[in-house]
Amino acid sequence: MKWPQGVSSAAVSCGIKSEGDDLGLVVFDAPATYAGVFTTNAAAAAPVIWSRARIGKDVRALLANSGNANACTGRDGTTAVQQESSAVAAMLGCSKEDVVVASTGPIGLKLPVAKIVGNLGALEANLSDDPEPFARSLMTTDTYPKLAIARVGEGSVVGVAKGAAMIAPNMATMLAFIVTDIVCPQQRLQSLLTGAVDESFNRISVDACESTNDSVMCFATGRVDGDLDQLQTALHEVCASLAEQIVRDAEGGTKLMRIEVRGASDTAAAVALGKAVAASDLWRCAVAGEDPNWGRVLSALGSCDRGLDMRNVEVSIGSELMFSRGEPAGRPEIAAKVMSLDDFTVGCVVGDGPGRAEVLAADLTTDYVRLNSEITT
Amino acid sequence: MKWPQGVSSAAVSCGIKSEGDDLGLVVFDAPATYAGVFTTNAAAAAPVIWSRARIGKDVRALLANSGNANACTGRDGTTAVQQESSAVAAMLGCSKEDVVVASTGPIGLKLPVAKIVGNLGALEANLSDDPEPFARSLMTTDTYPKLAIARVGEGSVVGVAKGAAMIAPNMATMLAFIVTDIVCPQQRLQSLLTGAVDESFNRISVDACESTNDSVMCFATGRVDGDLDQLQTALHEVCASLAEQIVRDAEGGTKLMRIEVRGASDTAAAVALGKAVAASDLWRCAVAGEDPNWGRVLSALGSCDRGLDMRNVEVSIGSELMFSRGEPAGRPEIAAKVMSLDDFTVGCVVGDGPGRAEVLAADLTTDYVRLNSEITT
Repeated sequence: MKWPQGVSSAAVSCGIKSEGDDLGLVVFDAPATYAGVFTTNAAAAAPVIWSRARIGKDVRALLANSGNANACTGRDGTTAVQQESSAVAAMLGCSKEDVVVASTGPIGLKLPVAKIVGNLGALEANLSDDPEPFARSLMTTDTYPKLAIARVGEGSVVGVAKGAAMIAPNMATMLAFIVTDIVCPQQRLQSLLTGAVDESFNRISVDACESTNDSVMCFATGRVDGDLDQLQTALHEVCASLAEQIVRDAEGGTKLMRIEVRGASDTAAAVALGKAVAASDLWRCAVAGEDPNWGRVLSALGSCDRGLDMRNVEVSIGSELMFSRGEPAGRPEIAAKVMSLDDFTVGCVVGDGPGRAEVLAADLTTDYVRLNSEITT
Repeated sequence: MKWPQGVSSAAVSCGIKSEGDDLGLVVFDAPATYAGVFTTNAAAAAPVIWSRARIGKDVRALLANSGNANACTGRDGTTAVQQESSAVAAMLGCSKEDVVVASTGPIGLKLPVAKIVGNLGALEANLSDDPEPFARSLMTTDTYPKLAIARVGEGSVVGVAKGAAMIAPNMATMLAFIVTDIVCPQQRLQSLLTGAVDESFNRISVDACESTNDSVMCFATGRVDGDLDQLQTALHEVCASLAEQIVRDAEGGTKLMRIEVRGASDTAAAVALGKAVAASDLWRCAVAGEDPNWGRVLSALGSCDRGLDMRNVEVSIGSELMFSRGEPAGRPEIAAKVMSLDDFTVGCVVGDGPGRAEVLAADLTTDYVRLNSEITT
């Protein structure tokens, strides 16, 4: 996989993490149109605050690190962001306002800016059109890099992401960077990105924890004329692929469940119901144990929408209907077989409304607990 | 501990669970004033629907079983409730409408009514003034029975409860039964109970899953004249004690955390913020690991109230201030020492409003996941 035209990237190990690359740079040959969608958490990290403020102006570079979120770091955090973007700007001969930044890792630790700045030269020396080293440098507890590509005529859309935990309602410690060479005005790019994020990253859940650092940024280098409807489709495809890769690589996760909600009053209601099932620790434990304990799905739906009429509700696991119109049904042994797969569907019909949505979620395992009992300080 | 005057109870093993007593009966010598607070889950179980409908009339008996929730069981579930209350009524010579019922255990399995009805005689033969066997018969994954008593002049308030998992916002697979011998009109009893539940059972969280079976019932036998303000205080005490016992005995839990929120706009906002911290899987894992990862507390607060101004926020662990007015602070080693206790406080100042609340929560451990990956079918 290659970056679209006019884009290059590199990665190095600068010593924030104990092993592996932890610093990545993406450079645009000429100023790129820039759009972004960020966490709505009030404890948004310093890099989020900086990069959010850059929306509307073209950018020349993106600097990202893993191993430290630079979140809840107060004045030190703000200073660090200024220092790293100034250093990149000095190297590229642009203004620091032309540089966006992102960080992921533990919260509350001071960002070691000297290590970052001291390695910019090495990054510049390694720039290439291969996005994979950059994608790898974003990894925290991810077990593989996440990349996706879609074609748009002569151009393309290429995205990279990292996920793992703190993935929830409205994104999470999740970074995604998407680049296209298609010409697209900024406002249009922003609305295309927002739409694609809503139907992908905002419909996944690992642990229902919304992070301080979630960022999805999109860059258009404007090298290729292309159809914007096709660009929209390609953006959706790339975002959907990255979102699914994130859930598949959920911390400690062993299963991907597709929660399909139908019959809700509208899409938002369907998404809320799907996320309620996705967030149920009890159901997620049952999924880990391949136990078709569908009552936990019903209980999650019923606590999300207290007006739900159980006589209109159906729950199925795979194609096995387990609860239908107020009555238990189905064969647990068939449902258990479905749940033994590492990718299966939970169907929830909640009425006869037009609202439908698919939410992707992971199971809750002892490995998740182990990973998150030991992660920082 | 003894039941208040005019009350007796018994327990037997009727074979719903593989071991231990699983069926309990409480009998009131004369019709008792009755009040109740129930789950608001739309998937409310058949016994909840029955017992909720009894509010406002006096009752003669309470029949409760563990090992089967009789939830999401459709017409069979409704029939089962009719059969068990009719059988108790026949034995006591009252109407089935004078009997309330409760069930707890796995969802979606047919209640074995014959086992229950066949053991009513044994229950009647064993009636005594000791509430403990009845409290034991309610246990599912509880590791000890939960009882509490408070005096009101010559009378008393005695409560028993079961908890363990599915304990969340607005109660959970949690049953509590409270009996007093103080004279109290029904409407007053209902409002006293609602107030006490709001400030106790509705401020605890084990796993943020709200159950289909939550019930808190209160009975007043009217044998003793007493001060109703004192009754209110006693009810609060008993509910608070039972609620704390439930969190202490959380499935897989090793720690009790007291999340104290201050400075919110009002009490409801303070409770919501406290519950957001209580529901954060990431923070709960950190608590299990005794890791003072306070950023996870901040992140939970910030995703609950997106308007929070971090410059007015303080987070402390025990008396160690870890984040203050936008800046990290404190010594992690001191905070870790606090977290090594099995009972500690997380302080969250979120502004300068008058709203404050304490929410009790448990940590998330590999044992919780193990228990809930294997519980049913």
